[in-house]
This record gives sequence, C-alpha cells and structure tokens, in this order.
Amino acid sequence: MRREIILSGAGGQGLILAGAVLAEAAGVFEGKEVVQTQSYGIQARGGASQSTVIISDRPIKFPEVLTPDILLCLSQEACERYAPRLREGGLLIVDQDLVNTHSMRTDIKATAFPFTAEAEKIGRRIAANVIALGTLAMVTGIVKLESLAKAIPARLPERNLAIALEALNIGARLPEARGAFSQ
Amino acid sequence: MRREIILSGAGGQGLILAGAVLAEAAGVFEGKEVVQTQSYGIQARGGASQSTVIISDRPIKFPEVLTPDILLCLSQEACERYAPRLREGGLLIVDQDLVNTHSMRTDIKATAFPFTAEAEKIGRRIAANVIALGTLAMVTGIVKLESLAKAIPARLPERNLAIALEALNIGARLPEARGAFSQ
Repeated sequence: MRREIILSGAGGQGLILAGAVLAEAAGVFEGKEVVQTQSYGIQARGGASQSTVIISDRPIKFPEVLTPDILLCLSQEACERYAPRLREGGLLIVDQDLVNTHSMRTDIKATAFPFTAEAEKIGRRIAANVIALGTLAMVTGIVKLESLAKAIPARLPERNLAIALEALNIGARLPEARGAFSQ
Repeated sequence: MRREIILSGAGGQGLILAGAVLAEAAGVFEGKEVVQTQSYGIQARGGASQSTVIISDRPIKFPEVLTPDILLCLSQEACERYAPRLREGGLLIVDQDLVNTHSMRTDIKATAFPFTAEAEKIGRRIAANVIALGTLAMVTGIVKLESLAKAIPARLPERNLAIALEALNIGARLPEARGAFSQ
C-alpha cells in the first residue's frame, strides 16, 4: 500500500517540520519505506509552502507525488493550489477557521478541524502544525501517534518538547470530539 | 543553472541533517529554487543513507536527481552505490580515511578530505557531516559559507551550535590546506 500525502499551508506554519516528523515517524519508528520532499523558492515565497511524504510497505520506485491520497491545508491559498490534485475519493483535511472548502470538489472527502484555534488556546499558534499531525494520524491511520511522539524530539528544541507533545495529544483528540467526516 | 547534489554515507552520519541545512541555506538564505528529498526504509536500513538536493536559479520542474553533478560520500558502500550515477565530469568528494576511490571512474573529478578525522580532533565524530558541508561550499561554490552558518541554528539543538559552527569553519579551511583536486 502506497500513500501519498501533501502537507500544505503558508510559509511560517511549520509544514516542512511537520513533513519531517511524519517521515521519521513512519520511516525510522515503523520501518516503512518513506520518501519525503520539500521545496524552497518561488513557490514558498509566493505564500504557499508544502512538504510531501510518500509512505509505503514496499520500496518506492517512483518518488514523486502526483495525485495525493491525503491533503492537509492550513491556508486557503494552499488549498486552492493543491486540492485540484487530490485523487478522486481522497481525503482533504483543513483548518476550519482558515480554509473555506465551500464549492470545492464533491468527489473527495473533506473534513475540517480548529487546529490554529486550539494552538492559540495553549498560547502557541505555531503548534497548529503538530496538532494537525495528531489529527491526521487518528483520521487516516497512516502512522501511529506514538511514532510521531518518538520522532518529535529529534526535530524540536528541548524547550519546546513538552508543548509539542501536548499539541500532538490535543490533535489526536479532535476527531473523537465530533464525527470526523462532517461533510 | 541547475545543480544536483547527493549527500551519502552510512546511517548515523547525519546526511539527512546535512541535506536539510544545505537546502535551507540555498533556499531560505539565498533565495534559490531548491528541492530536497530524503528517503527512509530498506535503503537506509541497508547501511547507506542519502539526501538529495537540487539547487537552481529557475523553478524546478523535474524534482528528481538522476545524474548528480556533485556527490559527497562518507562511506565506501555509499560511494560504490552512487558514484556510478555521477555525471561525466562531475565532482566526487569523499572522506579520505573511510572511502577508497581507487579503480573508481576516471571520467569524473575526485577529491578526498579527512572529514571524520577532523571531527574526531574536536571530540565529535558526528560533526563530520558539517565539516563536509563547509568543504563542499568552498570547493563547489554552490552555497555561501555564511548561508550554511545561518541555516544551522534552525536544525541543531542550542547546546551543539558552537561546535557545529566550529566544524563548518574547519571544513571551509580544508581545501586551502592543500590543492583540492588531487586526482
């Protein structure tokens, strides 16, 4: 089973970090085949930022993401850019307060959570990326929450570890707070 | 100008970190177009680890590295795996104490430096990756040393910053200590 994931948002929302954590969680701590790619440049400077992760049980021969199965969007611009590429029946996960999926494609599953609002509740708006990872893990099952928790320390300064692990757990609890697929 | 770089070695030598630092240096601090890819899985568990970086002045349409222009190898196994892919006339940079390039291709430029030995001199064998980045910057000119220095803090714990910047400077001075292209 090969799954292609795009994590997208605006610059500064920590999507490259989120991609690195997801890749290490699946690759190092679950022994999956993983290819992770990030871009810097016009695309990033233009406002949208993205990290792509491919997770597979078998060696990955084609390392490029063309039609993602799962798309996380933390900004409207990123959503408008990447949602058209989502495969039919794919899963779109957005920040409910930052992204309007109205009049978006009807041939995909879309679900929205208050990632940034929850991050603001703990005083760290920047933690929305890790909250989103926690939710992504629970909704998609592509990676275990404990693997994400193991991957976080290698990627974050020690002083931010406690809050990141809290953010991960907040994200993990968001889907059960309501039916995940409201749309 | 598009340059394709592969940083390779054994697991634990910090090549993924080195790739991330190189990508951020060129992408964030020099405004270049950059795509960085890393793999986890059988390839990494098999002993060889690699990170690829593409740096370009123009948007990168094809994000995969096929024939690298520059190849860094910190292990013999990685060198034997990736050197055949180096483009004709490309540059191979190896750790002189860990990699034997004898009977390697004659249609490429090869040069060797004591990255790991220098890292051991400062009591941090793990710093060989950053030393190699410093040398790579000086020998290839693909990125400025100061951009690497700016990119390091985002990727390393604060307690390791001073030693990493020292390692970078050690690496930068290695080429002038002798003629860089001995072969």
